[in-house]
Amino acid sequence: MEEKQTEISTIGEFGLIDRITSGITHVNESTVNGVGDDAAEVRYPDTDVLVTTDLLVENVHFDLTYVPLKHLGYKSAVVNFSDIYAMNGTPRQITVGLAISSRFTVEHIEQLYSGIRLACEIYGVDLVGGDTTASRSGLVISITCIGDAPKDKVVRRSGAKPTDLICVSGDLGAAYMGLQLLEREKRVSKGEKDFIPKFEGKEYLIERQLKPEARRDIIRELSDKGILPTSMMDISDGLSSELLHICKSSGVGCRVYEDRIPIDYQTAVMAEEINMNLVTAAMNGGEDYELLFTVPISDYETVSRLEGIKVIGHITEPGLGCALVTRDGNEMELKAQGFNHMSAD
Amino acid sequence: MEEKQTEISTIGEFGLIDRITSGITHVNESTVNGVGDDAAEVRYPDTDVLVTTDLLVENVHFDLTYVPLKHLGYKSAVVNFSDIYAMNGTPRQITVGLAISSRFTVEHIEQLYSGIRLACEIYGVDLVGGDTTASRSGLVISITCIGDAPKDKVVRRSGAKPTDLICVSGDLGAAYMGLQLLEREKRVSKGEKDFIPKFEGKEYLIERQLKPEARRDIIRELSDKGILPTSMMDISDGLSSELLHICKSSGVGCRVYEDRIPIDYQTAVMAEEINMNLVTAAMNGGEDYELLFTVPISDYETVSRLEGIKVIGHITEPGLGCALVTRDGNEMELKAQGFNHMSAD
Repeated sequence: MEEKQTEISTIGEFGLIDRITSGITHVNESTVNGVGDDAAEVRYPDTDVLVTTDLLVENVHFDLTYVPLKHLGYKSAVVNFSDIYAMNGTPRQITVGLAISSRFTVEHIEQLYSGIRLACEIYGVDLVGGDTTASRSGLVISITCIGDAPKDKVVRRSGAKPTDLICVSGDLGAAYMGLQLLEREKRVSKGEKDFIPKFEGKEYLIERQLKPEARRDIIRELSDKGILPTSMMDISDGLSSELLHICKSSGVGCRVYEDRIPIDYQTAVMAEEINMNLVTAAMNGGEDYELLFTVPISDYETVSRLEGIKVIGHITEPGLGCALVTRDGNEMELKAQGFNHMSAD
Repeated sequence: MEEKQTEISTIGEFGLIDRITSGITHVNESTVNGVGDDAAEVRYPDTDVLVTTDLLVENVHFDLTYVPLKHLGYKSAVVNFSDIYAMNGTPRQITVGLAISSRFTVEHIEQLYSGIRLACEIYGVDLVGGDTTASRSGLVISITCIGDAPKDKVVRRSGAKPTDLICVSGDLGAAYMGLQLLEREKRVSKGEKDFIPKFEGKEYLIERQLKPEARRDIIRELSDKGILPTSMMDISDGLSSELLHICKSSGVGCRVYEDRIPIDYQTAVMAEEINMNLVTAAMNGGEDYELLFTVPISDYETVSRLEGIKVIGHITEPGLGCALVTRDGNEMELKAQGFNHMSAD
């Protein structure tokens, strides 16, 4: 970073807030009043209001040695939008809390915000407030997203019923493999300044890790085809973990089929290279931000014709438990390995 | 802390979430669905919805050597409620984001949550969601509060008009003096284990720092008397700073009178002891969480009879600037010293 860098202390907290919030406009009718008061004002006379919060912590959720700040801002916003889509809603507003240590300059924070604002622009979300403060150590990003959904269209985790089909969008495990690749190149570089990492042929993995998208397109497609899922979640901690959440909330069991799990070619190549079990990566990798949902079996024909959606199994009576059926016909009980930041600490 | 301590890693993230959210019930009609889904669901068909976010960072906003975790939880919630009251609203829901380093045990987080839940109980607020993650260093608490207000009753910062009276609730500077006292006793103790700090006769200062309350009572009193402020804020960064915010947002100037600033006896004694200018402490101390508001001059008789509210000055034409009129009749321009965590870092 060779450009001019301005110490935050030279313009102060209020100066920084002025810089990062200048020129903010609103596109949603539900946004009444945004940045600049004790609280933002929104108005939702006819719909349910959805609220979700995510914290992203430096060196737990991201490593600034290979994550550009603009991408980080973009991803921080998008993962929250994903939670709103996962309730079959539309994200409308976000508030952004930032804790910043003194090694960050005004320009750094502007880069971070440019990513947040780009995500807002693309997804039609208004930035309506926040809090900016100091941190004694790393960067912490806390985003709260507000969205809406017609009252009878909200999809929770708890509505899955035996015989429902289990579907996922896109493919799984690529974001996790992208992380492995970035970590490997970081180790190889040993902090060398002009090091050029080897990403050729694995661009998809990098993109899935650094610049995920929320599946607004899938939500629209389902709605267009008249399909209302019986339960839904986004896949942030890994398919296994999320399937267990849905089954626990719905009081049901499930069977998913190994040969039905959607995996990209690049993910498979990378798993081979680092000698990792491909299905483990796809089932437990995390950060895919794809949608996992269930639909009544009567929707089979419609759903199986949709591009980018795959039927991977079905819901069972609770007594049958939750299992992955392997290619050779064995059943492996699902375990919530997930992305357990808690135990990794 | 002699009680049994459980490592968070032994029960994992999901185990911890189960522990801290067990037995949560909701009291507000607007709460449709809380913890346990991708997003919480709320419903506000007839009112404006207010949203505010605050981040509290260890060793920037609090020092765990003298702040009990239960008090910290209580305060974290209350400062957010205060922002909603400052818009003339009623807080209804909160989401809690926590980043926790490995030195915290399950019991520590339960203490923190017991304070958050106590505040929710007292103020009638529902805990509806959150995010719990690891931190590489200190504790970070991010709370988002949602509240409501009738559409024609929301009070912003921007409505103050020349001749309006400037009012504050309670007294100022005590929380800041409480912080000075706690810091002094920490230095004196030098980390000694059985050290007994000297707080006699200064209990009010300690309470104002460690366990502030949000002024729900003032909001109700104003409503009962039919007074709708023209502008309002809560005093978190200090009176000077907040007055400047109101004047800037409203495009006006102001005069406040030194001899009208409400100060408690204990605050005065402490300022004397540490040889600090009392008015500076009251004007710039921060963390008072009192309400600063303006009312039309026609409300003078009503407002001046209200207990716990003091008229401290008036709004002027913008050309006159913002000033404190000292006891000897001089005018000192107001400056936003505030509690600038940014430059302190």
